Amino acid sequence: MHRVKVRVVEDALDANSTLAQANRADFDRHGVTVVNLMGAPGAGKTALLEQVVADGLGDVRLGILEGDVEGSLDADRLARLHVPVTQINTAAGFGGECHLDANMVRSALGAVALDELDLLVIENVGNLVCPAEFRVGEHHRVMVCSVTEGEEKPLKYPLMFRACELVLVNKVDLLPHLDFDLERLLANLDTVHPGVERLLVSARTGESVDAFREWLVGAAERTRVPATA
Amino acid sequence: MHRVKVRVVEDALDANSTLAQANRADFDRHGVTVVNLMGAPGAGKTALLEQVVADGLGDVRLGILEGDVEGSLDADRLARLHVPVTQINTAAGFGGECHLDANMVRSALGAVALDELDLLVIENVGNLVCPAEFRVGEHHRVMVCSVTEGEEKPLKYPLMFRACELVLVNKVDLLPHLDFDLERLLANLDTVHPGVERLLVSARTGESVDAFREWLVGAAERTRVPATA
Repeated sequence: MHRVKVRVVEDALDANSTLAQANRADFDRHGVTVVNLMGAPGAGKTALLEQVVADGLGDVRLGILEGDVEGSLDADRLARLHVPVTQINTAAGFGGECHLDANMVRSALGAVALDELDLLVIENVGNLVCPAEFRVGEHHRVMVCSVTEGEEKPLKYPLMFRACELVLVNKVDLLPHLDFDLERLLANLDTVHPGVERLLVSARTGESVDAFREWLVGAAERTRVPATA
Repeated sequence: MHRVKVRVVEDALDANSTLAQANRADFDRHGVTVVNLMGAPGAGKTALLEQVVADGLGDVRLGILEGDVEGSLDADRLARLHVPVTQINTAAGFGGECHLDANMVRSALGAVALDELDLLVIENVGNLVCPAEFRVGEHHRVMVCSVTEGEEKPLKYPLMFRACELVLVNKVDLLPHLDFDLERLLANLDTVHPGVERLLVSARTGESVDAFREWLVGAAERTRVPATA
């Protein structure tokens, strides 16, 4: 029984990988850099994107693909800021899928004007496990980790922290009000992903959001492929 | 392809349901009330249990089954308080399962001295989606929702909020430092689960943890079955 289950899962990941490559080829053909933004529910993914969008990214044209189990609350928040947002709901799965997969993203791409974008940020479903297991064709993976979640999260969800090349440590404005040992969080981060780039940010006060904005612009420039489509 | 996937998932949930019933029969036979405690990563599930365990539950004998992707950090925290704790790691799945299922719990039951317990709290993997989809044989489902996660969580993860009969709104000690509209959270809660019981608590200050303790004792008494084993 367990072997059957593992087999089904391996097949699913194989199929996902094939579709992720197809997505990636489409992104590259249009010269669009894609960032998969992950994190726990309430870590502040949407709030950080709101901050990024509010001041824009210079001449980098940004679009957002918003993954949620149900509803379009986050997409609505972002669309208010006049950025092109496409919503994916995962509730068609059994009671709701806990992550985006390559097929869900592929199904949504018809609604995304890739030729009008330089950078597409895909906000994943809030979850520290499965989103790290399913590539969707992205070039970069970034996660948001809030200081209100405790110092041990890298040790408890190591795959997620290893999968990302940038960790945004959010809500640092709350540090004076928490019993939170920032050094311990950063040491735990280095235990599971030594030297991974990290930014201490606050979506609420805007602290260091500029650094994230610069990172996004740099990522768009580094992976930019001359559009052929 | 999609129909095949739905079929596989339905079969998996069917198998889970059968095993959950077997677990439930074992719990009932030993007169143990079982609570499935769920919530997002960092919501404060373990911290609340620490508070509960610290002062005990009177003559209700408490045990804990601790679900994590990897490691035993939470189990170690609780075991320090001299409560019997059993660890389940879900990392045997592909990169780690994001929830406990009935089979994982069943596999761990051999290590739990059910005949020495009145109440078993199963702390699920931190996740607002899949834990609500997999019964593990529990009598009661309780969730922890932290005020740092934002007001919209019930609308974004409705299945979880509907699945629970008690919602612990945690970290209320931080309310003065947050832009958080508690009334809006409670209204959203009533939208997806009208009238569901809720307690405003703080694992950090201990505020209203007594009420949770009383709820647990009451639950143990309500569902207590004369032990026949």
